[in-house]
Amino acid sequence: MAPQTLKGFRDFLPEEMAIRQKVINTLKEVFELYGFLPLETPALEYAETLLGKYGDEADKLIYKFKDLGGREIGLRYDLTVPLARVIATNPDLPMPFKRYQIQPVWRADKPQAGRYREFLQCDADIIGTNSSLADAELIMVAIKALKLLGFKNFKALINDLSNPYFFKTSFDIPNDKLLLVFRKLDKLNKIGKDGVINELVNDGFTPERAREIIENLNDQPTERIDQIFDYLDKNGVPKSQYQFLPSLTRGLDYYTSTVFEMAIDDYLGGSVAGGGRYDRLIGQFTGKDLPATGFSFGIDRLIEAGKQQGIFKNLPKTSTKVLVSIFSPEYLKNSIEIANGLRTENIPTELYLDPETKLDKQLKYADKKKIPFVIIIGPEEINNKMVTIKEMKTGEQEALPLKKLVEKLSGN
Amino acid sequence: MAPQTLKGFRDFLPEEMAIRQKVINTLKEVFELYGFLPLETPALEYAETLLGKYGDEADKLIYKFKDLGGREIGLRYDLTVPLARVIATNPDLPMPFKRYQIQPVWRADKPQAGRYREFLQCDADIIGTNSSLADAELIMVAIKALKLLGFKNFKALINDLSNPYFFKTSFDIPNDKLLLVFRKLDKLNKIGKDGVINELVNDGFTPERAREIIENLNDQPTERIDQIFDYLDKNGVPKSQYQFLPSLTRGLDYYTSTVFEMAIDDYLGGSVAGGGRYDRLIGQFTGKDLPATGFSFGIDRLIEAGKQQGIFKNLPKTSTKVLVSIFSPEYLKNSIEIANGLRTENIPTELYLDPETKLDKQLKYADKKKIPFVIIIGPEEINNKMVTIKEMKTGEQEALPLKKLVEKLSGN
Repeated sequence: MAPQTLKGFRDFLPEEMAIRQKVINTLKEVFELYGFLPLETPALEYAETLLGKYGDEADKLIYKFKDLGGREIGLRYDLTVPLARVIATNPDLPMPFKRYQIQPVWRADKPQAGRYREFLQCDADIIGTNSSLADAELIMVAIKALKLLGFKNFKALINDLSNPYFFKTSFDIPNDKLLLVFRKLDKLNKIGKDGVINELVNDGFTPERAREIIENLNDQPTERIDQIFDYLDKNGVPKSQYQFLPSLTRGLDYYTSTVFEMAIDDYLGGSVAGGGRYDRLIGQFTGKDLPATGFSFGIDRLIEAGKQQGIFKNLPKTSTKVLVSIFSPEYLKNSIEIANGLRTENIPTELYLDPETKLDKQLKYADKKKIPFVIIIGPEEINNKMVTIKEMKTGEQEALPLKKLVEKLSGN
Repeated sequence: MAPQTLKGFRDFLPEEMAIRQKVINTLKEVFELYGFLPLETPALEYAETLLGKYGDEADKLIYKFKDLGGREIGLRYDLTVPLARVIATNPDLPMPFKRYQIQPVWRADKPQAGRYREFLQCDADIIGTNSSLADAELIMVAIKALKLLGFKNFKALINDLSNPYFFKTSFDIPNDKLLLVFRKLDKLNKIGKDGVINELVNDGFTPERAREIIENLNDQPTERIDQIFDYLDKNGVPKSQYQFLPSLTRGLDYYTSTVFEMAIDDYLGGSVAGGGRYDRLIGQFTGKDLPATGFSFGIDRLIEAGKQQGIFKNLPKTSTKVLVSIFSPEYLKNSIEIANGLRTENIPTELYLDPETKLDKQLKYADKKKIPFVIIIGPEEINNKMVTIKEMKTGEQEALPLKKLVEKLSGN
């Protein structure tokens, strides 16, 4: 068999990495701006740490196996369970514990368009406080990150699952149908009332019953929602950037009150971030419940949405600013000298490494790698104490003394 | 069983992460300064991609298992084989291909002091050129990185294994003993001539024979070594930072000519980086040899050496500059306003999240988290249109108007 990337997995070549690094660095910056600190955990955990935390369906998707010592182990499925395990194994952590974590997770899912078996998660969580201020802060972090990435129109959709009046009146929906109803309600924002009614009817409800369910959805925010909105307001977050969505129902067996998602206008790939309060997970590890709230960015969706909206179009394709070509072997030392000088000035510089290669091939190389400038230094340049710099996009060339060269390249 | 970190694996809590991020960011910066671009590959590869590349002993240490689809797969054992696989699966990459890669690798090794089953590797490689300039560039990158990290005394130890006169005269050392001899010679720098002679004698050589082997080591650099040294010299690398070491013999079945290691003076934990030219690996994937040269930093050793030499001692323990405390719930909105103002000025700020907590407990929290400053804003401060800032290290407090506060915190 010819060598290949494992099915459902991806390599990230330099051009794609430039986008990924831009997104990751921006998220890091925002997390740290709000006082979140980095944490990393191992890719492998004891299987019993992972199993039984995400539901039976998810358990099947965990990559698990026996190691040489016979231990049952598995690959990280998300970043929240490892966090809960860290809280349990480090009882002296100062609380509230605010951490961010950016690491890949693995799921043995059916590969399909835009879904992979290894993908990067990017989480921020606050452990040890029940304060609604903590929930509000996470929403602010998510909003700030999208703004800083360059997204213009987006919204935080917020709900409180602890709302005892999730429905205005109580319904006798059978338990096995309840989750189905919640899933449909979750689509309210996307497909509208009539869309949801249609889907409920397809699932066996009468049209009257379906309409009744929808119209009895409680649109009265809870006290916690009111507080969160008050904090967002006090922080100057514009009202256009958040919204109470009483039909938002993500992870009912996991989340305990606040839930939220970030939706980007005109992006149909789903929410780019989501999370909420999960006050019961950590107790599964420590034997004692500890309030916790957090959310996760999906880097793949963020990048997909960003590409669609053109926010990366001015991002350089490479960090390399300039290729210093080699005119011919006898001028190698001049090229080395220039490359060395540029690097001393902190300008990311590639020196062409094969002194025997013809100049036009070196120029083609720069073009293929999308390096914006090429420097040429041959007999004429040396005579005039200049270097020639060629801008690859326009093809324009100019002769500059070294000092001007540094200025030109620093400014770009 | 109480939850625990898997044996042989580590969590990295925020204080340790601060050091790791500092080291990683410095290495990235240097790689990009020399025109290397980032690449990432999946943690999992087909087992056949990994097996048979590192020798039989290493093959046993690869974490391998069957996935749900029955594929034999394994966790990445290093970053060079995945790179070779990427070269094979992307035949149109512009050559020379210069990439850096910073990702964990997994080895089911016996855990021992300072050795873990998951550790971060940090590689830079140049594929597609046989030029000694490429070898020299890697050595320059390694030297520059150590310098920028703050190491003072270190040296690149360099050899050329293609040297046909590795020994001045040919010896009739039996093949099965040859590797043993090379391993001992590799220690020449550490334990001296007499030390190596002793060890060879312990392994069954006569003292005369052992001495003869040592003294016949060829200390005449090859043409490639001469060229590398010439390039290092042209780049202004001081002669004290590199050395020809004819006894350096790392990976004889892997490296094909240049090999080098970075040794930090007074650090006994081994070399912090090592690599060389491996012109035959990629051909195992593509069917056609492609020249290649590269090296790897061991982040754990770099950090251990750095701690020993005190180079991280002025590194902040946290990126958070200040904790904005909450005097009492009625002053929450003032604290929110200050925190918001500081974040607008890009000052990493934590707002205490439990408005009911007593102030002295909030101060203890800042102390435990090693946040350098705490801001207090209560009735007195509001009356005087000031905020109080307390420096945690000295305990000193001063009252400042908001604008001065930003100046003070930006300057730190």
